[in-house]
This record gives sequence, structure tokens and C-alpha cells, in this order.
Amino acid sequence: MSDTEIKLARIALTMLAEPGTRAVYRLVARHGPVDALTMTLAGEIRDQPTREAVQARLGAGDPRPLAETALATGERLGARLVVPEDDDWPRQVSALEHIQLPGADRRVDRELAPPLCIWVRGEWPLAEAFDRSVAIVGSRASTQYGEHVATDLAYGLAEREWTIVSGGAFGIDAAAHRGALAAGGLTIAVLACGIERAYPVAHTALFDRVAETGLLITEWPPGADPLRPRFLIRNRVIAAATRGTLLVEAAARSGATQTMRRALALRRRALVVPGPVTSAMSVGCHEILRQHASARLVTNVSQVLEEVGRIGSDLAPVPQGPQRPRDQLDDQASFLLESMPRRGAISPDTVATRAGVDIRTALRKLTLLEALGFVIRRDGGYALVTTRRRAATEDDPP
Amino acid sequence: MSDTEIKLARIALTMLAEPGTRAVYRLVARHGPVDALTMTLAGEIRDQPTREAVQARLGAGDPRPLAETALATGERLGARLVVPEDDDWPRQVSALEHIQLPGADRRVDRELAPPLCIWVRGEWPLAEAFDRSVAIVGSRASTQYGEHVATDLAYGLAEREWTIVSGGAFGIDAAAHRGALAAGGLTIAVLACGIERAYPVAHTALFDRVAETGLLITEWPPGADPLRPRFLIRNRVIAAATRGTLLVEAAARSGATQTMRRALALRRRALVVPGPVTSAMSVGCHEILRQHASARLVTNVSQVLEEVGRIGSDLAPVPQGPQRPRDQLDDQASFLLESMPRRGAISPDTVATRAGVDIRTALRKLTLLEALGFVIRRDGGYALVTTRRRAATEDDPP
Repeated sequence: MSDTEIKLARIALTMLAEPGTRAVYRLVARHGPVDALTMTLAGEIRDQPTREAVQARLGAGDPRPLAETALATGERLGARLVVPEDDDWPRQVSALEHIQLPGADRRVDRELAPPLCIWVRGEWPLAEAFDRSVAIVGSRASTQYGEHVATDLAYGLAEREWTIVSGGAFGIDAAAHRGALAAGGLTIAVLACGIERAYPVAHTALFDRVAETGLLITEWPPGADPLRPRFLIRNRVIAAATRGTLLVEAAARSGATQTMRRALALRRRALVVPGPVTSAMSVGCHEILRQHASARLVTNVSQVLEEVGRIGSDLAPVPQGPQRPRDQLDDQASFLLESMPRRGAISPDTVATRAGVDIRTALRKLTLLEALGFVIRRDGGYALVTTRRRAATEDDPP
Repeated sequence: MSDTEIKLARIALTMLAEPGTRAVYRLVARHGPVDALTMTLAGEIRDQPTREAVQARLGAGDPRPLAETALATGERLGARLVVPEDDDWPRQVSALEHIQLPGADRRVDRELAPPLCIWVRGEWPLAEAFDRSVAIVGSRASTQYGEHVATDLAYGLAEREWTIVSGGAFGIDAAAHRGALAAGGLTIAVLACGIERAYPVAHTALFDRVAETGLLITEWPPGADPLRPRFLIRNRVIAAATRGTLLVEAAARSGATQTMRRALALRRRALVVPGPVTSAMSVGCHEILRQHASARLVTNVSQVLEEVGRIGSDLAPVPQGPQRPRDQLDDQASFLLESMPRRGAISPDTVATRAGVDIRTALRKLTLLEALGFVIRRDGGYALVTTRRRAATEDDPP
């Protein structure tokens, strides 16, 4: 069975049933994606609501050629597809296999299976990008206070080499992405539609910036619309892929509090920023703190680090040595890094020429190297980071 | 041994050692106040620092005539002295016998014995006034947000017949007292100096209003100065006499957080109002919530009631029927209540004449009856409360 067959089968399955559908996930887990697709097409799904939903979608045509088109479209858009068969798959999302939300009476609160595949725009290896990551979520109708706090925390965490994950929405999500970008850090926007859809449209430029230095990801194939329930379906991935979820501002029973409930059910760190009790935008935050003993009130970056810095019991142990060793860099980034002078700054042009990399790529890679803490901007150029900290955790180049 | 002898001995002891001194309290508990005073005067106190402090104060003269003067002065000022031998003593303060503060390295954090006596200005029976009480404490340098929330919560709790206890200071304390007064409720200011000292002076009028419908109380005899450590000594009484302590705004390690630590150590309800993480005045609140699992975040009156409404395991069970039965009212209030018409409102003048009470007293007692929920203001006068609630918990008058 070729990689492409596997990928096409997984894509087709996300076209036949919404991501998260347990019946489909179980079929894939038992029979592999290709046979699971054959069985699904043949109506061999036990769960009746799922079988009926699949049947209805089959009315739109055979999903197999559509999947081929989607894969080609994705490639054309500069998006790649990552599947669980890849080394680059973020394994921690498999915690979703066993998640159970208390009092789940809606379908979206029960169909919480792990993703079948993830579309990725941006150059970071997916698993590595999620390795030391924190979700920052909150209300779209945020206040100035909430946005200030979200930006500040995202900036501080990104500065300390934590990836900021959010949903790309207005308000707190956007503040979190922007804070991470301002720190030259890594941020991931998890979309609820096709990778090519800038939703909301006003965030087109923001998404381009995110993809430039971080990642845009989604479970849905190109062309998928940002339908309302998909935001809630998407939220389980934000909760599962990160070390912890930080709720900044949320109205009662908002989408962001739902992400938090998923994080709590997954035993990920559940961190909450309080706010004025007079603000409707903090009601959801205070409710989470009141209802869940394991939710933790946090007020600054070091308190967040104190929580997510611990290795969660249901997360694979994270190596405590070099977090992002050089040998995980791609060729161009490695060449650039090796072309840097041991002391002093160098202009991007000069290092690009030395490394044999075109200037546009060099600028992008240097931003990435900066976000990783290998280089810093200095004297109008870039310089190697040679702090005691970096030296202590990583061997010097030969 | 006469009541007066007992009172004079207790007053004299508070002159020889600061209230809360364990060595003195133990002597009183073992030998009674009169013998304890004799022993203290004879230097028969084991604890060396206490013995030396007593010796130093004895230099100011024999405390026994000073105690007599104090008692006479108190009477002249309209203040009475309540002692543990009285029925009217708030028994719950004896929880202080066993309190231990974690990491108590200062003397004020260790000398936390129950009060020896309490000076009272105002007409409410002391024990009854504290029966259903909540402390509201916080910073003197409060923000508008904190004052708004303190006023609001005090108003709502007072309206539901809870006594609001605070320290009479600027900021949150004053807001709490004012909120209770605005609701026509009962409020108690616990002072850290002589009952005649309006401290801060700017609160002279506030204290008069508090004494008019509620209580001013203190452990210190008339003439005692509001010395800095006394505020901290006083705080243990606020924590011990109430069902719970509600912290509204507090800087890190402020006096109000100290009251909270005492409430926590006493296993009283420890309730905390969060605020913006950007506000220095909420740092102490957030720290308490982060450090103490038993501290509870609250945002409104009903959440406070949910907590203090439960009967604490170390508080005497509170009768769930009539909270303040009529037979605990004084004669004038009883006569006024019995002179009220069964239906419709009556003017204060008319009911005063019917009851044979002078109009000024009648107005004061009607305010009190209103605070107790027996009467309400209506049509420019007062009417009996005959709601289902009151009817269900109390027998109708014959």
C-alpha cells in the first residue's frame, strides 16, 4: 500500500464524515485507512447516525477522485498532508481515543476521536512545532484587558521558546498569535475549514504571517467551509496537541470554555486568567476555576511555565536537554547556521551568499533560527546566540 | 466573685499584655480572671517574653485602678463590656485557642489566643449580631473596582440578613460597612484601639452610623492607641467571629491577606474575589487562591451565600428555622413590632404612640426591625413582612 493510497483514503474519509467521528476512527484503527474507506463506502459502519451521514454525503459523488483533487490542490497551495503513518505526526493527539466529556449530550461533545490527517502550511515539522506548546484561547468579543493579557503572555511564552497554539479567530486568538509573532516566536493557527480559506477574511495577512514563520493547520480538506460545529470539533485538537490550555477571557459556556473542558478531560494543564467580576468576558473563566479543582489560576508567564514545564503524566516525556537540536533543522537552515561567524553580526545578504541560499529563503530561515534561539538580530544583521544557557544544553559546532 | 471583679480583672489583663497573648489566656482559662490577674501581677507567668512585657507595663502603675477608670469611662461613652462569662459572648472566638499559622515567625502570628473581653458600642446583642456574619476585608489603597464590588456584595449580603464585619479602615473596609448600611443591614466595625477613638478620624461619621444601627467593638480599653501591630492582632477576631472571610482587593502580603490566613487556619470559609491580573491590588487575592486549595473564588452574592450558608464543621450548628426570633428583641422593639397593623403600612409617629416609645427611639428600632426582615418601608411608613418565607419560619403573633 503506497503512502499516497493511505493519504487519499484518509482524505476521503474526512469528506464522508466529520473529523472526530468515532465509528470511522475505530474502523481505521482496526483495518487501516484503505480498507476502512472501502468498508465505509460499502455501508459497513455499525453506528447508525454515522452510516446515515456517510450515505447522505455519498450523494455528492465518489470521494476518491475528490480526494485526489484535494491532494493536488493542497500541493499547489503549498500545503502538505501529515498522517499518523508519518514520523512527523504529533502522537499526543491519540489521547483523544479515550476522552470522555462529563454530561456530553451533544454529538460534538461525544465524537472526539483523534484526527485522521492534518493539512499543514508552513515549514516547521508538525510534531516538533507542537512539542513544547501552549494553547491560548478565549473570546472573540474580548476586552482590551483580555487582549493585553493574551498578547503579553503569548509574547513571554514565545520568547522562552514555547509554541503558541490558537484558533485564528478575532479577539483573544488573534492577540495570542500576534504576541507570539512579535516575540519572533513560533505560533500555530488551527483552522476549522480548508487550509486555503482565510477565515475570518480580515485575518488574511495574519494567517500569511503565521504560515511564514509558524504553521497553519487543519483537519479539513481544501474547499471545506468554516461551518459552525467545526469550530467545536477543531477545539479538541487544540486541547490535545498542546501541553496545556490557557483561557484568557470567555463568556459563560463559550467555545473557549469548551476547549478548556476538553483540556481538563484530557488531563492537560488547564490554566485560567481571572478578570474583573464585573466583566461578562471573565464569567466563563471564573466558572471554570470554581467548577474544576484541577484548573489553575495564573497571572503571569512564570506561573504558566511552572505548570506546563512539568511533564504531564499522559504526555510522552520530553527530553530535557537540547529542545530543538540542530540536526532537526532542514538543509538550508543548517547551511545558514553553519555559515554564521562565531563572533559578531553578519548581514543576511552575506550569510545567504556564504550558505548558497537565495536571499528570500535566507530571510525566512533566519527568522526561524531566531525563533529557535540559535541566532539573534544585532547591528542590522544576525549574530549567533552563545549564551551560557545555549552552550550548556548543546554541543558547540565542531 | 462579682461580675464587676471579673470584668475589672479582664480589663487589667488587657492593659498588662496585648490581647491574644497565649500565656495570659492560659492563666485565665486555668485559674479564672481574678486569680490570673493576681498571678500576673506577682510575675508568675512562665513565658519569659510575656513576663518581661508585663513587667515593663507595670512601670506605668497598678492596672487595677486604671481598669476601674476604664470601665467608668466606657459606661460614660455608652460602651458596655462583654466578657466570656456573659451569655452574650460570641462563643465561636474560642476556636482561636487552637489556631496555628503555618510558618509563623512573628510574635503577632503566634499570639493568637481568644479575646479576654470585648467593648461594645451599639444596641445589638453581641453574640446574636455575629451569628450570621461574614467578614469583608481588603486593601486601604483600593481601586474603584474593589470598592464597587465590596459595596455591592455587602449590600446584597446585608439585604439577606447577614451581618457584615470589617475593620473600619479606608478602602474596602469602609465600602463594606457603607454597603451594609445602605441596605439598612447590620454591620460591625472591629477596631484596634479604644472604643472612643475614631480611627481614621475621617471615619467619625461612619462609625457613628455603624454604632447607631450596628456595633463598634474592640478588645482594647478606652484610651488605647491604634498602634500598628494592633491591627494584625485585631484581625484574628474578625476571622474567628465570622462564618467566613471575603477578601476583595489586597496587595501581596497585606494585612487583609493576613486576616485571610487566619480564616484559613481556623477552617472558616475563605472566599476571594478575583480581579484584573494587571492590578497590583488583586495580587494578594490571586496569591491566596493559588496557594490555598480551600480558598474559594467567588464573584457574586449567591456564590458567597452558597459557601457561608453551609454550617462549618467547627461552628456551632445554627438553627435553620427562625434566625432571629422575636423573643430576642428588646422591649422597645417588641412593643413596636406588636403595635404594627397586620395589614397595610403605618407611620412611625403612629406606631411610636401606640407602643409608648419616643419617636427617636422608634425610628432607630424600626430600622433595626427592617434590617431583621420583620418590617419593610412602604407608603411612607412601615408594614409587617408577611411573606411566605417569614411565615414559614416563624409562628404568627397570637
